[in-house]
Amino acid sequence: MSTSQGLLVTAGKVHTPFKTELLAAMASERFARRPPHLVGILATKKDDARTYAEFTKKACEQIGIDFELRLVGEAREGLDGQGVGIEVEEAILEANDDAEVDGIMVYYPIYGGRQDQYLQSVVSPQKDVEGLNHQFLFNLYHNVRFINPLTLRPIPASHLPTPLTKTSSDEAPEGTVKSILPCTPLAIVKVLEHLGVYNKMLEYGDRARGKVITVINRSEVVGRPLAALLANDGARVISVDFSKRPAASTTKSNPHHIVTPLPDITLAQALSISDVVISAVPVTSYKVPTQHLKDGCVCVNVAGEKNFESDVRERASIYVPSVGVMTIAMLQRNLLRLCGYQDMIKKDQA
Amino acid sequence: MSTSQGLLVTAGKVHTPFKTELLAAMASERFARRPPHLVGILATKKDDARTYAEFTKKACEQIGIDFELRLVGEAREGLDGQGVGIEVEEAILEANDDAEVDGIMVYYPIYGGRQDQYLQSVVSPQKDVEGLNHQFLFNLYHNVRFINPLTLRPIPASHLPTPLTKTSSDEAPEGTVKSILPCTPLAIVKVLEHLGVYNKMLEYGDRARGKVITVINRSEVVGRPLAALLANDGARVISVDFSKRPAASTTKSNPHHIVTPLPDITLAQALSISDVVISAVPVTSYKVPTQHLKDGCVCVNVAGEKNFESDVRERASIYVPSVGVMTIAMLQRNLLRLCGYQDMIKKDQA
Repeated sequence: MSTSQGLLVTAGKVHTPFKTELLAAMASERFARRPPHLVGILATKKDDARTYAEFTKKACEQIGIDFELRLVGEAREGLDGQGVGIEVEEAILEANDDAEVDGIMVYYPIYGGRQDQYLQSVVSPQKDVEGLNHQFLFNLYHNVRFINPLTLRPIPASHLPTPLTKTSSDEAPEGTVKSILPCTPLAIVKVLEHLGVYNKMLEYGDRARGKVITVINRSEVVGRPLAALLANDGARVISVDFSKRPAASTTKSNPHHIVTPLPDITLAQALSISDVVISAVPVTSYKVPTQHLKDGCVCVNVAGEKNFESDVRERASIYVPSVGVMTIAMLQRNLLRLCGYQDMIKKDQA
Repeated sequence: MSTSQGLLVTAGKVHTPFKTELLAAMASERFARRPPHLVGILATKKDDARTYAEFTKKACEQIGIDFELRLVGEAREGLDGQGVGIEVEEAILEANDDAEVDGIMVYYPIYGGRQDQYLQSVVSPQKDVEGLNHQFLFNLYHNVRFINPLTLRPIPASHLPTPLTKTSSDEAPEGTVKSILPCTPLAIVKVLEHLGVYNKMLEYGDRARGKVITVINRSEVVGRPLAALLANDGARVISVDFSKRPAASTTKSNPHHIVTPLPDITLAQALSISDVVISAVPVTSYKVPTQHLKDGCVCVNVAGEKNFESDVRERASIYVPSVGVMTIAMLQRNLLRLCGYQDMIKKDQA
């Protein structure tokens, strides 16, 4: 080892020329008219996130940026333990669509993992000061450094197709086509339709009304989209992360599903009130305990491993041991639909 | 419990009407001309994924869909243990851009977690038979069931801005602006520029050439984008997941970074050859062992917790204890840039 200590360089020193550059830009006519308006969205009560938010505010005020902190979910006072709900996403969409907002930053982690990544891509690239949405990450990984600003494609709420209101038909209105749904959740819905869990006498978009459905799996590929699909069709969904206790209930509220917390319910309690139990846990040893199932319920196994005990039919009135064939059929159906959509796109471009 | 067993319903039974519907569609003139062409991308040698791929192939052949399985990374024979690289992403982009391909499905999990989710959004929505890209998931969660097909926005490789080739200037070419980079990785690059790790005598896009940099953190928010940024600037990057041994080396190869595996290197070995060590591990107890650092290296701590031991400057020639101030400065810089881009978009729309 060397006898002299290495240099200690603080970020403050690196910061100096950037601060000068920022102050010069802020002094321009563009910002003299109206200073940039940055919205911070804080959805957690973790101290780190709050400290970082306060640090951002102070740093913005120092150079004249108008920083506004919006508290949602458990970050709001008096809402301890009431969870985040989908308020974060609503707050992002509102800011996306607000012409008075120039930039958006969200304090992560909120849920952690895949759900946070989903939220990152909800932020309009036109306002994504963190550079975390898919379009920017894609450019980064592909060494695309320069872009045409007109390619920054937002999903502002006002440009969205109108969410479904109940209707007697599932036909796509003139000029529109059906959105593509993930194959496995869609396959499960089709199985439930076949089993009569969906009631065709009810209106499209409300046909699972009155049903309580427990979904064991909260992945962004199966469990979370499935819970949303079922809730959007009127079911009350209890969403269970198999490694944790069931903590959230997805309940229908037009125009789309809203998650409200059920912090104190156990898996046994969830099962005892569920008309349908869907399990997709990729762990051989995981078994839904038959003894807690409601008599006459419908059980659907989605995992490659069998998630139900061998005596499941002692309680369940109907048991579906696998959905693989239907998943592939939905994949094929999606393919044929997309071929049709591609034809429409080609025709439009011609 | 009831004395009679519940019904056993297989997915095969649910499948019958869908198969009829699919066969009818396949018999149409559209598909008689050219059957739909589905490309499956298999990037893992896990048995489950291969079985599922074979199952898809069989099911497609049964109804006349042209299924083609493309093996990449470790799924290719003779490549045991050589990792996946970024071949999956290349394969997706190639299929996105191939007019002969109508649909794409990727067999997950590959990396698991956030990197798989990134890949899902690389698939063109026009070809995303799995319905897993962000646009479709967003519609699902918002109960948007019908869409205008012209809004299915792909990122086909041929429409991409050209990736950077080395140049003497970092100015955006006429008609383009700089893409937005994630604040924390960008802040770190700016710190390294300040410290002279980036050599300004070299061409833009190659200024970290010759440097070996270990990045401890592989998240989709800090570690992975940072590794790509540094590699795209010419560095040889060893990427370390702090909970695992360092398994991948990110090395520069124009036009963008390529990950090649270094399966047998230990953290100690990585540190001993690294000119720069960047650590972003959000765990108080995690410490980079000073004894393994190369004498005279540069160490940058990015975590809120201190990831370096108190004697780090015995080995490091320069130590940067935090980058927070620079992260905020980059956020502010991104904000001001986006304000400018928004002005251009408004002007174009006016």
